[in-house]
Amino acid sequence: MTIETLITSLDLIGIAACATAGSILAIRKGLDVFGVLLIATVASVGGGTVRDLLLNNHPIFWLVNPTYLIVIFVCALLTLIFYRQIIKIERPLRVFDAIGLSAFTVIGVEVALLNQFTPFIAVIMGVTTASFGGIMRDIICNEIPLVLHKEIYITASLIGAGILLILLHLNIAREIAYPITLSTIFGIRMTAVYHNWGLPRFNKK
Amino acid sequence: MTIETLITSLDLIGIAACATAGSILAIRKGLDVFGVLLIATVASVGGGTVRDLLLNNHPIFWLVNPTYLIVIFVCALLTLIFYRQIIKIERPLRVFDAIGLSAFTVIGVEVALLNQFTPFIAVIMGVTTASFGGIMRDIICNEIPLVLHKEIYITASLIGAGILLILLHLNIAREIAYPITLSTIFGIRMTAVYHNWGLPRFNKK
Amino acid sequence: MTIETLITSLDLIGIAACATAGSILAIRKGLDVFGVLLIATVASVGGGTVRDLLLNNHPIFWLVNPTYLIVIFVCALLTLIFYRQIIKIERPLRVFDAIGLSAFTVIGVEVALLNQFTPFIAVIMGVTTASFGGIMRDIICNEIPLVLHKEIYITASLIGAGILLILLHLNIAREIAYPITLSTIFGIRMTAVYHNWGLPRFNKK
Repeated sequence: MTIETLITSLDLIGIAACATAGSILAIRKGLDVFGVLLIATVASVGGGTVRDLLLNNHPIFWLVNPTYLIVIFVCALLTLIFYRQIIKIERPLRVFDAIGLSAFTVIGVEVALLNQFTPFIAVIMGVTTASFGGIMRDIICNEIPLVLHKEIYITASLIGAGILLILLHLNIAREIAYPITLSTIFGIRMTAVYHNWGLPRFNKK
Repeated sequence: MTIETLITSLDLIGIAACATAGSILAIRKGLDVFGVLLIATVASVGGGTVRDLLLNNHPIFWLVNPTYLIVIFVCALLTLIFYRQIIKIERPLRVFDAIGLSAFTVIGVEVALLNQFTPFIAVIMGVTTASFGGIMRDIICNEIPLVLHKEIYITASLIGAGILLILLHLNIAREIAYPITLSTIFGIRMTAVYHNWGLPRFNKK
Repeated sequence: MTIETLITSLDLIGIAACATAGSILAIRKGLDVFGVLLIATVASVGGGTVRDLLLNNHPIFWLVNPTYLIVIFVCALLTLIFYRQIIKIERPLRVFDAIGLSAFTVIGVEVALLNQFTPFIAVIMGVTTASFGGIMRDIICNEIPLVLHKEIYITASLIGAGILLILLHLNIAREIAYPITLSTIFGIRMTAVYHNWGLPRFNKK
């Protein structure tokens, strides 16, 4: 198993997790079947799409690789059918979501570097890839995006993106740099979920 | 009258209908004249714009053909001036909206095929062209998008896009394939409006 | 000081003002530090980003010039730290916001002309550059965009864009055309702020 296969696998696990979590939210909001499919799609490939649009990196990945949409639609339909069973494992599903957060960050950083952007922009694109799906999902569902006020999510992605860039700058092989980055992001995120951590908020209205 | 002229005419009818419906919503929401113009524009060319951005299909159609914005601005201004008269015909206006739904779907499918994307992506782009204008309109107006929870709208577009692709795959001439597709979408949509049909929703909170 | 340096300076003043105003709103909404950074970024470079995406004008300006993001992040962090002091000067800050409105409009018009679009589209892009940052900021914060219903904001941008195009059409040098345009937009905006002017709204629900 090469390091590219590992990232691709973790990416698809993350896509599936985001699609499922998006479907649960869409069902709670009373959307119909196409509403659920759309939210599942936006939640899972929205971040990568915003990144590719900003970087002018065409064709956008899910337009030329049908695996993404197929995985998303299958997850959305399964969530519609087995809703009562799936919400029982909603919290455990966060493990897969944290895997996605890790993979999305690494992919976002790498796509920016491949397109000759600076390390500074690469960090921004790692975080963008990891967070904009959830942001757009919440905007369409008419909620203030969760990742912007309640969770250690962007923090984990940002720290991971920084570590990855330092490791690559030190000429550490990707076979070593990726596992370190992925486990750091995953570890921070799961610790935060487990302890119900959030960043300080500044509501001083 | 060629088949291209027919599609262009139906497209402009749809643009006018979406601009008018968007203006009515914006006026109800208490927006000022520029708010009404913006909502009218987003509602009518927003779907095609998202499609062109995703497919990297530049220049975006309304940037190089002023007819679109002129039709939109005229409709928005007429709606502002004759608001009381126009809301009386709000339901009949849905006939024109259904014409737009049909034309937008056909155009979305064709633009994707022209840009060498797969039939699967072409269906997605037909639906995107037909639905994202309404979705963005509702997001800006701070409402959960109507087409995602209340109406047989995406369904009609999806079925029509599928039929068009099957007909084109069978080498049926566009002079025959287009009218069949257009009347199928229009028929499904108007039947749904007439009977007040919606898809089952899954609010199981 | 060349006319380009002037515009660049005013642009950065506007970026700083939009980032600060965006941060204040994000803090009021109870967002965490990354939520505040994101809203500050979207509010200040969102309009130019939408313009560049629509016009296919790549690379997007803030991806290749780090000054923008640095100014934004510094303003956001200062607002987080000195919140109590900064909200006391919230109204005076509108002077800088009006400077930004002027500069963004001029830049939007020029980018569209440079990319060979028509004067009609150039006006639209001037207004887009000046207004879409605030629109997206309010959408993420789950509010109906302020510039669409409460303020003489788009009006000032539109009048300024029109005047600039007329002056350029008359072959007036940019050294003269820019100051006239900038002071017109600034004057209209500040007069509106001072007198608390708004456009008539049409809420006829």
